[in-house]
Amino acid sequence: MNLEKSKTLKVGICGYGTVGSGTLALLQGNAKEITRRTGVKIEVCRVASRSLQIDIAGVTHCGTDPFEVADDPDIDVLVETMGGFKPAYEVVEQALKNGKHVVTANKALIAERGMPLVELAEQNGVTLAYESAVAGGIPVIKALREGLAANRIDWLAGIINGTGNFILTEMMQKQREFADVLAEAQSLGYAEADPTFDVEGIDAAHKLTIMASIAFGMPLSFENTYTEGIAALTPDDIAYAKELGYHIKHLGIARIENGWVQTRVHPTLISTKQLIANVHGVGNAVLVHGHAVGSTLYNGPGAGAEATASSVVADLIDIARAKAQGLSKPLVPTLGFTKLRTDLRALTIDEIETEYYLRITAQDVVGVMANIAKDLERHGIGIDAIIQKESDGQHVPIVILTDKARESELNNAIAAIESLESVSEPVMRIRVETFGL
Amino acid sequence: MNLEKSKTLKVGICGYGTVGSGTLALLQGNAKEITRRTGVKIEVCRVASRSLQIDIAGVTHCGTDPFEVADDPDIDVLVETMGGFKPAYEVVEQALKNGKHVVTANKALIAERGMPLVELAEQNGVTLAYESAVAGGIPVIKALREGLAANRIDWLAGIINGTGNFILTEMMQKQREFADVLAEAQSLGYAEADPTFDVEGIDAAHKLTIMASIAFGMPLSFENTYTEGIAALTPDDIAYAKELGYHIKHLGIARIENGWVQTRVHPTLISTKQLIANVHGVGNAVLVHGHAVGSTLYNGPGAGAEATASSVVADLIDIARAKAQGLSKPLVPTLGFTKLRTDLRALTIDEIETEYYLRITAQDVVGVMANIAKDLERHGIGIDAIIQKESDGQHVPIVILTDKARESELNNAIAAIESLESVSEPVMRIRVETFGL
Repeated sequence: MNLEKSKTLKVGICGYGTVGSGTLALLQGNAKEITRRTGVKIEVCRVASRSLQIDIAGVTHCGTDPFEVADDPDIDVLVETMGGFKPAYEVVEQALKNGKHVVTANKALIAERGMPLVELAEQNGVTLAYESAVAGGIPVIKALREGLAANRIDWLAGIINGTGNFILTEMMQKQREFADVLAEAQSLGYAEADPTFDVEGIDAAHKLTIMASIAFGMPLSFENTYTEGIAALTPDDIAYAKELGYHIKHLGIARIENGWVQTRVHPTLISTKQLIANVHGVGNAVLVHGHAVGSTLYNGPGAGAEATASSVVADLIDIARAKAQGLSKPLVPTLGFTKLRTDLRALTIDEIETEYYLRITAQDVVGVMANIAKDLERHGIGIDAIIQKESDGQHVPIVILTDKARESELNNAIAAIESLESVSEPVMRIRVETFGL
Repeated sequence: MNLEKSKTLKVGICGYGTVGSGTLALLQGNAKEITRRTGVKIEVCRVASRSLQIDIAGVTHCGTDPFEVADDPDIDVLVETMGGFKPAYEVVEQALKNGKHVVTANKALIAERGMPLVELAEQNGVTLAYESAVAGGIPVIKALREGLAANRIDWLAGIINGTGNFILTEMMQKQREFADVLAEAQSLGYAEADPTFDVEGIDAAHKLTIMASIAFGMPLSFENTYTEGIAALTPDDIAYAKELGYHIKHLGIARIENGWVQTRVHPTLISTKQLIANVHGVGNAVLVHGHAVGSTLYNGPGAGAEATASSVVADLIDIARAKAQGLSKPLVPTLGFTKLRTDLRALTIDEIETEYYLRITAQDVVGVMANIAKDLERHGIGIDAIIQKESDGQHVPIVILTDKARESELNNAIAAIESLESVSEPVMRIRVETFGL
């Protein structure tokens, strides 16, 4: 196909790790079909990478300085796949200032430091796209900003960290301990040497922050996202939950109600009847509830070079199609809304109301169950289900599902239970999500 | 908000049944949020409906003639929710000729008579949008044309008829007969008085035809879509399949391989380990495989006034956002590609290769199993699993899962088996889908 120069979208990639190299490979390997889709040739003219030692076939300029890409007047779009804040923030800022579109896979950058970049993009009339920053290859940003745009989004909930879900799946299916599975995940390359980002929920909190902003039309506010990891979960908890009809997932939940927003990442019991509870292994899934459409689910690979590149290139195709029609300004506002709401208030974790799973390790003595029930009742917490497991001779595990309660009251009740003489260990507390059903 | 006239998108709705009235209700009820998303006011100025007797609050012109809407120079977008071909085809044609955008929920119209309308829209530089025609509120058209646009789509498979899935779910969960559940679905309003479209797979074939076209970038070709209904399925088949680790779903499957395309709707065994096999009730789900991203799944409500209206209004929001940027031409080609492939050939159902479930009702005599196995072997068909169920004294049901075989050979083998003296009833044959796993 012989396209005139104006029908070429010139791209520079900063960061040539998994996602950056996957993006180049996808653009080169599927060039013909992509041009058939867009009417535009997408050409990678520059790659910049700190550790770049060699030239890359088909790329004119290979270097080590990402600012050269941001400053190159020939480049239409800068693809940022470096990760981290430094120099990613300055590189993206520089590119936007120079009137370039930016496509980034950097969830931390958007979630934690995104607001000034969003504003800069809008001032300069350029696109700042980040489909690949959330849920890898699943086009959930597009679904939220466009496909579901007719709706007021009430809530969304996602399994948005593949490493964590792999660990929980292994614990569930093979009754293995957390630490044991984590070590395996590290050796398989699913988990980083420092797994904090994944298992403590920080990575998920980044993605949740982005989704909450575009779902509710509010500024990115990572600082309001509550985070709790999965390291304390035991195979027993997973087995007891299953016995009660639940799987435990590391869920990111965002909800808006009467002007109050909650965004939280924590282990969560979900009924096995829910499709999302049955998303196992390294997959991601996001369940979104719109006031008109009801619940829709988006499932697929949340990581990996090719899957993530699929979303980076989808963003490039959006820009290419706009260019083909002579449009320079982005059609869809960066955060999905032309005006963001600043009147919403964040609920602290103490203020949320939900149902809870409690596992209490009590001494096997007469009256312990009655004392626990009394403590719950005194704090106004109803009991939905109880399982008392077999005693090991000295201790007996008691598992309770509560009715809906306010977290601060639940914490008071737990403190009271833990102060009982017959309760020797801290109470395990896991939130339950019913999705309003 | 006080928007100038140019920042109003004027809409006329033709057809005021479930979807048409749902669309108006959604636009009116969520007007503020929609304007916040688009920067444009979307105003319904006209409604035309054959049976319209009364005026509708907030709508200036209510009438019975849809051509008045198509000819009104003030109208930017005509929403076609009449259904059927006549007068829908002429109304849409007239609107496109008049340079109006069209949003339609009419899957039969697009699948069977869409090509000239697609061409007309492109000649006139207007949008012909049809998100609501496929899978109700699930934004799967957007996923295929945009979100997954970096990929060569290899195949897709969908549960795309809620009525059929409700019936199969009831048959599976309660061991009920098809006719019995159908009657209930009709009384609940899930199934039409004439259920042919749903249970024979024609409705699903319409949706599959549309998805195959935009997945592979080829003209709409309903005439090449093979269709087989679910009326012949028995609760026994569903139970035997489950015993073997499968659910039976009425699946629409589209696949491209070496320039050959297959599009087919039929009952299908799917491993219960697949998430899509666990989509029960009236929900829809579409599983899409892209060469880069792998498999992604889209699940949600496939019908209903509000869910379908959610997609109609999403299409309107796309158009409104384009208008807000002063863009008149559509960004995304109507069928997802700037050039459609005309070199692809359609595989007939005889030519497909897949695995099969066979249920054979044989007389309970010595040697029958050996004869059946011999007939399969003679046609080169391997056996993957066999269950011989308990005899009722005279007859014994034999259930066989075959290896992959060409359908024409399988049919020859079935004919041979049916001609055995000890086989008294026709052989039940259901295709198995492994999704290449």
